Amino acid sequence: MVQLVFLGFGNVNYHLYNALYNAGNVTVKQIYSRYNKAAFGSIPFTTDLSKLEEADVYIIGIPDDAITSFSEALPFKDRLVVHTSGAAGMEVLSEKNRRGVLYPLQTFSAKTPLAYETIPVCIEAGSAEDLRLLRTLAGAFSSKVVEIPSEIRARLHLAAVFVNNFVNHLYHISETLLAADDLDLSLLKPLIEETARKIQTLSPAEAQTGPARRNDLKTIEKHLHLLKEGPNRALYARFTEAIQNTYGKKL
Amino acid sequence: MVQLVFLGFGNVNYHLYNALYNAGNVTVKQIYSRYNKAAFGSIPFTTDLSKLEEADVYIIGIPDDAITSFSEALPFKDRLVVHTSGAAGMEVLSEKNRRGVLYPLQTFSAKTPLAYETIPVCIEAGSAEDLRLLRTLAGAFSSKVVEIPSEIRARLHLAAVFVNNFVNHLYHISETLLAADDLDLSLLKPLIEETARKIQTLSPAEAQTGPARRNDLKTIEKHLHLLKEGPNRALYARFTEAIQNTYGKKL
Repeated sequence: MVQLVFLGFGNVNYHLYNALYNAGNVTVKQIYSRYNKAAFGSIPFTTDLSKLEEADVYIIGIPDDAITSFSEALPFKDRLVVHTSGAAGMEVLSEKNRRGVLYPLQTFSAKTPLAYETIPVCIEAGSAEDLRLLRTLAGAFSSKVVEIPSEIRARLHLAAVFVNNFVNHLYHISETLLAADDLDLSLLKPLIEETARKIQTLSPAEAQTGPARRNDLKTIEKHLHLLKEGPNRALYARFTEAIQNTYGKKL
Repeated sequence: MVQLVFLGFGNVNYHLYNALYNAGNVTVKQIYSRYNKAAFGSIPFTTDLSKLEEADVYIIGIPDDAITSFSEALPFKDRLVVHTSGAAGMEVLSEKNRRGVLYPLQTFSAKTPLAYETIPVCIEAGSAEDLRLLRTLAGAFSSKVVEIPSEIRARLHLAAVFVNNFVNHLYHISETLLAADDLDLSLLKPLIEETARKIQTLSPAEAQTGPARRNDLKTIEKHLHLLKEGPNRALYARFTEAIQNTYGKKL
């Protein structure tokens, strides 16, 4: 039985809690948060670091730049303390405890239900024994647990920024463009869904279509004309050039 | 009963054929293609324009820049001829026939099955009667048929380029970044899926997360450092700036 304490209760830890609170071989012993929140079911909640209970693993889920000072402030040592960040290295954690990382590769929003078993979890630890513990813990909800060192995890997180943060911003730009004609993004939702679905079976290169891929200069020119001078037009030009350069030589 | 002839048999017309060949009030009379293809089931196939049969609607599914000359070459007049392009105006069709547009707002790949009833179809025609005919035709497979004039359709198509072509290119960039560490895009597929799923219920602005959204300058700097000088780094910088500008004032 792995005994757990959550440190911080933002979106990531909220969802880890949800994924783990009734997992077979895991007990959530306590939740710490700076903010005074109502108890979650029967799990004790504290806002006082000095009242932290003993556990096998402490999971820190707070902003990256607060991890170091927070982990320094923990009133115990030689226990396993992990963070959940994609970008921060394991070494940002205080050395006074055993260190590890448990990075769930997913985007979390408050109250959005998720299929936890499909979420890849990247783990890292300072010893084989702690790694085994994290593998048990992550494996309690996820069917895809992979050991990834900090250096590679940082690049994985960067790749995730492209397919999540930047993709979502393209949705936002599209919504803005449609709004000018009083059209709603709902008109593009089947396309958005299919675009993501397609690469579950095709490679992105096989799935690529559109004016830039076809080198359809007339449509590209028309589109540049429709976009007013500004960031969206610059982005359009940059993507078009990137796609042309990627596939141009193969035409 | 609407009688149909498909002119050209690329991805769009192949899927329209699939969506319509056993629809209740539609008969596919003939398929024309430049290329000599085997007959599709019992539907007559021709490579000879002079052998086109009489029908209520002719659907042109060929590259945009070939539509005008192709529609000029049709050996009949005063019939309803439509194209399926998002970018081309209705007026690219020859005036010798009645003109229209039937633009299915989806990305089509050979042999990828689709839920046709969810595909929004944008229609346009020169008369109320032809519009009614196209509404019946599109409504035979789609539950979302909207009348959209050429000018607005061009901007809708542009918005679609952002959420389909550009999004897919971000998937490709991400795959390239992962390949440097011998990692596979499959690790990001749950995230890709969830990113698209999320905006079915949240607005893209509500769904936006990541270092640029949080204005996490340390992570942004780290990411820029990880990306070698080149188009991916330039794209990262541009997106980051765009996201910061979009949300910065609200922080």
